[in-house]
Amino acid sequence: MSNSIGTCFRLTSFGESHGPALGGVIDGCPAGLAFDHALIDRDMQRRHLGTHATTRREADKVELLSGVFEGKTLGTPIAFLIRNSDTRSDDYEALKALYRPGHADYAWQQRYGIRDWRGGGRASGRETAVRVAAGAVAKMVLQQKGITLHATLVEAPQPAEHDSAGGIIACRIDDVPAGIGEPVFGKLNSLIAAAMMSIPSAIGIEFGAGFEAARMSGSEYRDNWRDDFTTQTNHCGGIQGGISNGMPIEFRTAFHPPVTIPQPTTCIGADGHLTTLTPQGRHDSSHVARTVVVVEAMAAMVLADLVLQQQHSPLH
Amino acid sequence: MSNSIGTCFRLTSFGESHGPALGGVIDGCPAGLAFDHALIDRDMQRRHLGTHATTRREADKVELLSGVFEGKTLGTPIAFLIRNSDTRSDDYEALKALYRPGHADYAWQQRYGIRDWRGGGRASGRETAVRVAAGAVAKMVLQQKGITLHATLVEAPQPAEHDSAGGIIACRIDDVPAGIGEPVFGKLNSLIAAAMMSIPSAIGIEFGAGFEAARMSGSEYRDNWRDDFTTQTNHCGGIQGGISNGMPIEFRTAFHPPVTIPQPTTCIGADGHLTTLTPQGRHDSSHVARTVVVVEAMAAMVLADLVLQQQHSPLH
Amino acid sequence: MSNSIGTCFRLTSFGESHGPALGGVIDGCPAGLAFDHALIDRDMQRRHLGTHATTRREADKVELLSGVFEGKTLGTPIAFLIRNSDTRSDDYEALKALYRPGHADYAWQQRYGIRDWRGGGRASGRETAVRVAAGAVAKMVLQQKGITLHATLVEAPQPAEHDSAGGIIACRIDDVPAGIGEPVFGKLNSLIAAAMMSIPSAIGIEFGAGFEAARMSGSEYRDNWRDDFTTQTNHCGGIQGGISNGMPIEFRTAFHPPVTIPQPTTCIGADGHLTTLTPQGRHDSSHVARTVVVVEAMAAMVLADLVLQQQHSPLH
Amino acid sequence: MSNSIGTCFRLTSFGESHGPALGGVIDGCPAGLAFDHALIDRDMQRRHLGTHATTRREADKVELLSGVFEGKTLGTPIAFLIRNSDTRSDDYEALKALYRPGHADYAWQQRYGIRDWRGGGRASGRETAVRVAAGAVAKMVLQQKGITLHATLVEAPQPAEHDSAGGIIACRIDDVPAGIGEPVFGKLNSLIAAAMMSIPSAIGIEFGAGFEAARMSGSEYRDNWRDDFTTQTNHCGGIQGGISNGMPIEFRTAFHPPVTIPQPTTCIGADGHLTTLTPQGRHDSSHVARTVVVVEAMAAMVLADLVLQQQHSPLH
Repeated sequence: MSNSIGTCFRLTSFGESHGPALGGVIDGCPAGLAFDHALIDRDMQRRHLGTHATTRREADKVELLSGVFEGKTLGTPIAFLIRNSDTRSDDYEALKALYRPGHADYAWQQRYGIRDWRGGGRASGRETAVRVAAGAVAKMVLQQKGITLHATLVEAPQPAEHDSAGGIIACRIDDVPAGIGEPVFGKLNSLIAAAMMSIPSAIGIEFGAGFEAARMSGSEYRDNWRDDFTTQTNHCGGIQGGISNGMPIEFRTAFHPPVTIPQPTTCIGADGHLTTLTPQGRHDSSHVARTVVVVEAMAAMVLADLVLQQQHSPLH
Repeated sequence: MSNSIGTCFRLTSFGESHGPALGGVIDGCPAGLAFDHALIDRDMQRRHLGTHATTRREADKVELLSGVFEGKTLGTPIAFLIRNSDTRSDDYEALKALYRPGHADYAWQQRYGIRDWRGGGRASGRETAVRVAAGAVAKMVLQQKGITLHATLVEAPQPAEHDSAGGIIACRIDDVPAGIGEPVFGKLNSLIAAAMMSIPSAIGIEFGAGFEAARMSGSEYRDNWRDDFTTQTNHCGGIQGGISNGMPIEFRTAFHPPVTIPQPTTCIGADGHLTTLTPQGRHDSSHVARTVVVVEAMAAMVLADLVLQQQHSPLH
Repeated sequence: MSNSIGTCFRLTSFGESHGPALGGVIDGCPAGLAFDHALIDRDMQRRHLGTHATTRREADKVELLSGVFEGKTLGTPIAFLIRNSDTRSDDYEALKALYRPGHADYAWQQRYGIRDWRGGGRASGRETAVRVAAGAVAKMVLQQKGITLHATLVEAPQPAEHDSAGGIIACRIDDVPAGIGEPVFGKLNSLIAAAMMSIPSAIGIEFGAGFEAARMSGSEYRDNWRDDFTTQTNHCGGIQGGISNGMPIEFRTAFHPPVTIPQPTTCIGADGHLTTLTPQGRHDSSHVARTVVVVEAMAAMVLADLVLQQQHSPLH
Repeated sequence: MSNSIGTCFRLTSFGESHGPALGGVIDGCPAGLAFDHALIDRDMQRRHLGTHATTRREADKVELLSGVFEGKTLGTPIAFLIRNSDTRSDDYEALKALYRPGHADYAWQQRYGIRDWRGGGRASGRETAVRVAAGAVAKMVLQQKGITLHATLVEAPQPAEHDSAGGIIACRIDDVPAGIGEPVFGKLNSLIAAAMMSIPSAIGIEFGAGFEAARMSGSEYRDNWRDDFTTQTNHCGGIQGGISNGMPIEFRTAFHPPVTIPQPTTCIGADGHLTTLTPQGRHDSSHVARTVVVVEAMAAMVLADLVLQQQHSPLH
């Protein structure tokens, strides 16, 4: 039941990598918003960056099914789909009965007792295409509020030959008004952390000064006031008590390297038998370049959701 | 609306630091579970560790209001409260109209337009007492499944004189069967990250090899199989594709230092006027020692929730 | 997990009839609302109407635990409790191992495998005290919007000697602006129906012309326009397509008679053995008079929830 | 945000009557279930009964997009779509700026400030096609548990010439084990009532003896035990305290007549100007015959959801 995210701006995602289609339904997008399909196309193109050089394909096309009429959102669910094509399920035939190291194959099989082994099935990174499309709609909501966000690759080690590499992506959200976020369990940092850790290969997140803050003294760490309600430093990453304080929101997400590499790989069968083989198929040695737009998409959905939630604070 | 956490094991928390009481309602605890009140008392005592030496008080007492009958849970909501006493609201009178640096005062005021300024109100760390009590109930659920968890302080710099210090807490969860966790947006690591970042002062989290994994090659990072379905390393922290793989679940959470320190502190008034004063009242120079049990409590609630959720997978 | 109701104005209820206390936590009440405790007392008094003449007791006292500061709501959870006293658990000792006809005893035991048999436990009508208290808070939200509601007893057969009677309660909600309610599954009539059927002994509900509408022709049924956007009739009960149309919202709820009557009653034991006994304890021959305020409370919670939800429609 | 229904078996519905497609995403369907597409087709055909004689069309075709692999459910979201075709939007051009009596046009416009006026948009009865498809999947879950359901038309007045008629549909669910349903706010009758009232034109619902129960004495009403845990009568409709008691679940839903009739109809413009016209387009004089399968579909979804929810009661 974890294929939905958000409360007021809510994406429900569906689809397997080699099934007929992936797609999503966005419920809660406000009515009357000008719908910018070009923004979706642009972000889908960004997600296509750095994919396997020898198999350059066009970016996925997003087909709109509902929720938009005469160029404006209706307030009804916005459904869209992305057809799968150019799938090479045969490449995966050998892996049908084997669990690869580092992949979700085994854990997934234990969870469901069944899995679509073709191209990773629902556990494929291809699922992020749906996030990018929905994130673009969230950006339309944020644009109207004047909120902008920008992710960048801040660490991207070069993959070694026949090997792969991970990296670190920073994200900064500007012009978030003070007062966005919910205290206690729905803190802005909680929601952002959950969203980031849901991205395939994410393995850590830190806000503002992050892990370094654990080694700072209170007098070094605390962000002192200026008389315009900004602060002299931003060690807290723009969030206090789970609520935005008007400073830029800043966080960094770490991604581990892809675990499929063109080297002999020892897989395990359901009976515990170990088998060594060398992966076939199209596998990139780094995913971080095209994960940048996924980070933005997830952050945009979290922010859009909170901004919409808080419009129901009537007396304030 | 963020005072609840969990889907099948769900805590709703309430209470202000200097109001009549804090407490919680746990909905979804299975019926027929032997209720171990001593475990609650023990964890409440652990949360009391390292509090201000000159103000040694007894640990908070948890009063049970419902949901337990003849020593067993009824399957109905378990409500409990913790009365506030020994509150010194006068210490905060001066801060009524001022926003302290590093605190949630200003962000909270922007969010709600009103706040209980006494002792931090709902934003007080005192709110974690409710988490610890509910976490102890979650541990009762996990014990029955043979799942254990253990948090430890792995970095705890000594606070400098007239200053404060943060630290890093590691947590390890043992004997989680493979297959716990929900893919896509409800990943085990997403839920743990959200739970950890909801703890006051949390500023970063990493699983397994964490941020270091971003600098490893794929061949170094990936956890290779042994023929008993364990892996030779545990760089992924026991989670693959958001689902437990049967290895110990391991993560580390970073906490920034307390921002109230016994030094001159420049606060800001609602009109932007800056005022310097030296904090009064009882403030500890480090919170991490007693946050250890809060980390366990939050992890226990996440795990109990997921374990209960997955019992409704009928065919598997 | 069904002890909560509402999305933006959300009550979580707890408590057994003969346990230490019943109570509730309201999450989502807007900040800054003047809190009218007298309204709670007044409604609690109304719920006390028509109770057993020989055991006239004072109405239950509602103790506030959080969420209100200096007479105003904080936007944080409003928790309250109602202590149980004057419980006569001994009256129920004989029923410990027996399931009464018409009661939830047997179904509850099948559901949970355990139950608090004293005074009905959580299945007791006493649980409605929590609804009335929370409903009074919902009325405070509605008052501010100018929305009023009024329930009345429209059918109340006289109980026969040594027997009991049910009845029908009508409810009318005035000054609801057009446009309140959510289409498809969250229709205003759906939410009201669910809320009404959750009241103990409720057995049917109809809106506007109700069951009679099934026998009307379309030309008789349809509510024709006047030029001020009101309609000449109100057969639809003020709701079209699940959304308020600006006319009064009108519905009627039927309640079956109490099933405990001072006559020989055949109960069944867990082993299927039938036992006849005559009920002891305090049992009223009709509940409908005091259910009127419960109907209002539930309607108020549904309306407050929807009114608050719809404040997050930003463009409209 | 009301386009989803269910907790563990959850349908999210989308689509406008004259947009590209309607469809749904079912999250929470158990993994490993044999998928019976023919059951979907059969129920879609039943929904097609009694439609306008002169425009006999084939039943809608349901295209599956995800969640099923090699004939079995994967435990991942099951997405499906139904393309719109044969739409005659021109028939509605005249109604673009007018609100019809008895329709959701005006209420919807007040709610969203925008609407797709073609064929009723999202408020069209065409939306029930999605319910029928999803209900068929819910029936697959119930079949495996041995639960069957059957709805029948019990009152169906003949439409007068140039007029329309409503009716009453009864539904009976057999072989529901005792103990299904959640107490307090998630009662089985509450969930069924909400589901039924969400069907277009529903205006009342009653369980078991229904409104007649309000006029019965307690001694007449109460269902006395037989020694096999069945009861001699079933006035309560198989539900006690919101939980199934093992007897058949029985309820009746009333539907008002269609409000579009081939007679002069006075509509209102946004400016309050009244205009009389005679409806064009294809409109049926009765909907109840084909609503029978919609009643079953909604009941099936409620039951499947509860049955799956309750599998997470671990100790019982």
